Amino acid sequence: MLTDIEIAQAAEIEPIVKIAEKLGLTEDEIEQYGKYKAKLDLSNRKDAPLDGKLILVTSINPTPAGEGKSTVTVGLGDGLAAIGKKPVIALREPSLGPVMGMKGGATGGGYSQVIPMDDINLHFTGDFHALTSAHNTLAALIDNHLHQGNTLNLDPRRILWKRVLDINDRALRNIVIGMGGPTSGVVREDGFDITVASELMAILTLSTDLTDLKARINRIVIGYTYDKAPVTVADLGVAGALTVLLKDAIKPNLVQTLAHTPVIIHGGPFANIAQGTNSIQATRAAIQLGDYAITEGGFGADLGGEKFLDIKTPLLGKTPDTIVIVATIRALKLHGGKPLKELNTEDLAALEAGLANLGKHIQSMQRFNVPVVVAINQFTADTDAEIKLVQEYTQQFGVDAVLANVWGQGGQGALELAQAVVDSCEKASEFTPLYAADDELTTKIEKIVTEIYGGRDIELAPKAKTQLKQFTAQGWDKLPVVMAKTQYSLSDNAKSLGAPKDFTIHIREFVPKLGAGFIVAMTGNILTMPGLPKVPAANNIDIDENGKITGLF
Amino acid sequence: MLTDIEIAQAAEIEPIVKIAEKLGLTEDEIEQYGKYKAKLDLSNRKDAPLDGKLILVTSINPTPAGEGKSTVTVGLGDGLAAIGKKPVIALREPSLGPVMGMKGGATGGGYSQVIPMDDINLHFTGDFHALTSAHNTLAALIDNHLHQGNTLNLDPRRILWKRVLDINDRALRNIVIGMGGPTSGVVREDGFDITVASELMAILTLSTDLTDLKARINRIVIGYTYDKAPVTVADLGVAGALTVLLKDAIKPNLVQTLAHTPVIIHGGPFANIAQGTNSIQATRAAIQLGDYAITEGGFGADLGGEKFLDIKTPLLGKTPDTIVIVATIRALKLHGGKPLKELNTEDLAALEAGLANLGKHIQSMQRFNVPVVVAINQFTADTDAEIKLVQEYTQQFGVDAVLANVWGQGGQGALELAQAVVDSCEKASEFTPLYAADDELTTKIEKIVTEIYGGRDIELAPKAKTQLKQFTAQGWDKLPVVMAKTQYSLSDNAKSLGAPKDFTIHIREFVPKLGAGFIVAMTGNILTMPGLPKVPAANNIDIDENGKITGLF
Repeated sequence: MLTDIEIAQAAEIEPIVKIAEKLGLTEDEIEQYGKYKAKLDLSNRKDAPLDGKLILVTSINPTPAGEGKSTVTVGLGDGLAAIGKKPVIALREPSLGPVMGMKGGATGGGYSQVIPMDDINLHFTGDFHALTSAHNTLAALIDNHLHQGNTLNLDPRRILWKRVLDINDRALRNIVIGMGGPTSGVVREDGFDITVASELMAILTLSTDLTDLKARINRIVIGYTYDKAPVTVADLGVAGALTVLLKDAIKPNLVQTLAHTPVIIHGGPFANIAQGTNSIQATRAAIQLGDYAITEGGFGADLGGEKFLDIKTPLLGKTPDTIVIVATIRALKLHGGKPLKELNTEDLAALEAGLANLGKHIQSMQRFNVPVVVAINQFTADTDAEIKLVQEYTQQFGVDAVLANVWGQGGQGALELAQAVVDSCEKASEFTPLYAADDELTTKIEKIVTEIYGGRDIELAPKAKTQLKQFTAQGWDKLPVVMAKTQYSLSDNAKSLGAPKDFTIHIREFVPKLGAGFIVAMTGNILTMPGLPKVPAANNIDIDENGKITGLF
Repeated sequence: MLTDIEIAQAAEIEPIVKIAEKLGLTEDEIEQYGKYKAKLDLSNRKDAPLDGKLILVTSINPTPAGEGKSTVTVGLGDGLAAIGKKPVIALREPSLGPVMGMKGGATGGGYSQVIPMDDINLHFTGDFHALTSAHNTLAALIDNHLHQGNTLNLDPRRILWKRVLDINDRALRNIVIGMGGPTSGVVREDGFDITVASELMAILTLSTDLTDLKARINRIVIGYTYDKAPVTVADLGVAGALTVLLKDAIKPNLVQTLAHTPVIIHGGPFANIAQGTNSIQATRAAIQLGDYAITEGGFGADLGGEKFLDIKTPLLGKTPDTIVIVATIRALKLHGGKPLKELNTEDLAALEAGLANLGKHIQSMQRFNVPVVVAINQFTADTDAEIKLVQEYTQQFGVDAVLANVWGQGGQGALELAQAVVDSCEKASEFTPLYAADDELTTKIEKIVTEIYGGRDIELAPKAKTQLKQFTAQGWDKLPVVMAKTQYSLSDNAKSLGAPKDFTIHIREFVPKLGAGFIVAMTGNILTMPGLPKVPAANNIDIDENGKITGLF
């Protein structure tokens, strides 16, 4: 069996100018980055009509068994092309850090991949590096401000702006900086997050243009004074310089699938501490340039799905026409209690128990009044009886579960799914938001917990309660909320699989992200800097004298 | 008067494909990065004859008055084009860190600039970001090795491999990492250098191809065991992964001057702790593609010049045909004791005293048996009497000092200089190395100190003496030496201007750079992580809604 990178390397790839031509882009609208990648300057299309159909792909709660949401997204795009539509896929950019840690890419798999997959998974067009650069430039400017006299009266113990690297590096989570005497800064505690956790990532992907980007950067709260007053980038006066560093990163990137379907890839914020989806610009471009825009949100429907609908949709100017929920029979059996090592054997009882997880996500997404299609991402061990059980189960929600073999057959394995999505997009839908913009922060959280997670209530830790009072005084109490919760469970307990009920969500603390324009509600410990495993993937990656890469995926 | 960026923005720029066509490059040899930058894949030209003339541009010891070495290099290139030659310029890539600190770019100035100067000074084609990424990936892999059981018996107190960022960030010079308990690594002292100080930067610019790059990475000494045995990247087994991260960065970049002269820009190692010049590949490409290759080394002839001739030349396969030493009358007066604020008034006595610095550099470069031309980089305040004094002075060395107004007039201001260089290249020269490859480390240093710096002798601190014994045991005692010395003086005392004599150079310690293939001899404190000033340049940089940048330079 060929590996993903072997399939990708063997593929015929079209020059990116040809893909751009097919989309009707002018020469001025594309900037090549090598022969197979391009940045798009779509500033002349800002007001073009958003008349394509919008399809949001999400999933059940992820498990170690793998769901293949990206693979289905890519396969569905190729499937739509195969039945004569003009699809454009919009995806997040993968993070480089995990590439050196765990084998496994973020550009689909098998015969449903985006190429050139090695470049996309490595430096791509430099967007994440530009973000790392801008983020750490701000950090250096903050520490330089402390060092040069601290006229803003910043409390070094209350600086919110950490540093970032796009590397899995646990040793940088908690550090002490500024040592070495009076010429080398002010000693204080600090830490590094991975670049995708940067507020600048959330900001970049929510910004509509350079002006919006700069305005958002100005609003970032970098910390508090000794009097506990918030200090912003505007106070430091460096938003212009940071925007300059992001002037190219703000442009979406164009690549293609193995079947030459256009893919716009842009930005990659986390789906727990941020909105978890590709940029507003990328999704808008897909809707403008294609008749079907296929996009996705990180993790399951409770995280990426909810955030797409509550945070991104209001800014997008377009609501989804269909939501596809991806599930695998393997993962559903795991949700039903079957051990990971036994997933290749038929088990209808475990499957039936696990289907509750899928059911809850169908209901959550239907809550928004958008038609839902379930995609069963086929694995070879799936039995007919198992498939039939899933398909019968979803009928109680009025939803079809369509089998797709995207890994093995690409778009040809998704013809039925593509047709189901086309049909679904013709159904009447009137998007119904979960909460009103002027709902209180706690009201918003309660609605997410009860209506999306299926929980009972929320409990605020003392710190969170104190913060809520401060935020009300600051006028931050009606901002949208981003739930930072484990992706593995509907609850805040990663071990609670299936569809738990009557649980309480515990809010440990809030983190203000005024640039992004939301408040993060932290439940439990969310790791924002991953570590490397005992044998990192880096040990198996190699390149020969001709530049051929092995071991990457 | 227009600023550098205003001149650059007003310039007519040619599509980079046109510049590439003029050089005879095929479509397969260039990869566009936007419309005005390209990466070059010259693997099919590796064995092409090196039949262009090679011109090394260097300078007197730099001063706060400014010498304009890059500006003269660019102007000379345009001047050669103006007199009908086919020049190709080879330069280093500028570092992003200082851009946010002090106003002033590294792509020439006035009407002798390389464009697009904003992109080149910002992220360019991502080479430095790839180096930062590869460097810090190795650092994370080292700390992960400590964390996961340390089977290599690495002593955490003797790790040589620090971390890097392309940012001026003094607060990261000395840090403690690995705090936060047993899941977040091993506590130890660490620090960040600026990316240009990374050994990977030195390695990338000395590598001839991917195979050489990987072999050099394997040889990097990352630290020592508890038994003081050196540990290399080969022991960690991750050279392949690091090489993958540098697969595009190893390709030189093509841009152009304001006058559309081709410029190959690639790599930017420090000229004190590393070899301080653009890549072997870039310089070779310039010699292969043009009839005159104009290149440069960092700081003055004592640092960048010496290293170009002792470290780079043996690997290049071609010795320089002419060395141009850049001086300004302002800087010479400063070397002669005149205060910085009074440099705009004529002072023949100060100038005469300062000329000793120029004289010493002429002699040092003549030591290599290469014809020398002095370029007087003209400033408006220079008087006829001052210019005449310099021109008469250099005659004692049989060298012409040619006036060039490159800042104000571009290539048209360097016609005479260009002709002088062409004539000089016709002179007979037989390159005479300063030292033999198998000279002892201390012999090499003594020859540099006495014959290039004009000093008397060297003195090794106790630590350096101990290291010398260890290095001899390791078989590292006959490697080339890189002197890490202040750029401001021929001696190791930055305040000693002009041409000091009879001084001792104090070697504090040695740093083995086995990947780069040299030993660094540290004299005094060499800062490898700059800081930001009280009012950083970042405070004045801005971008408007159309992407037009102001305040960058």
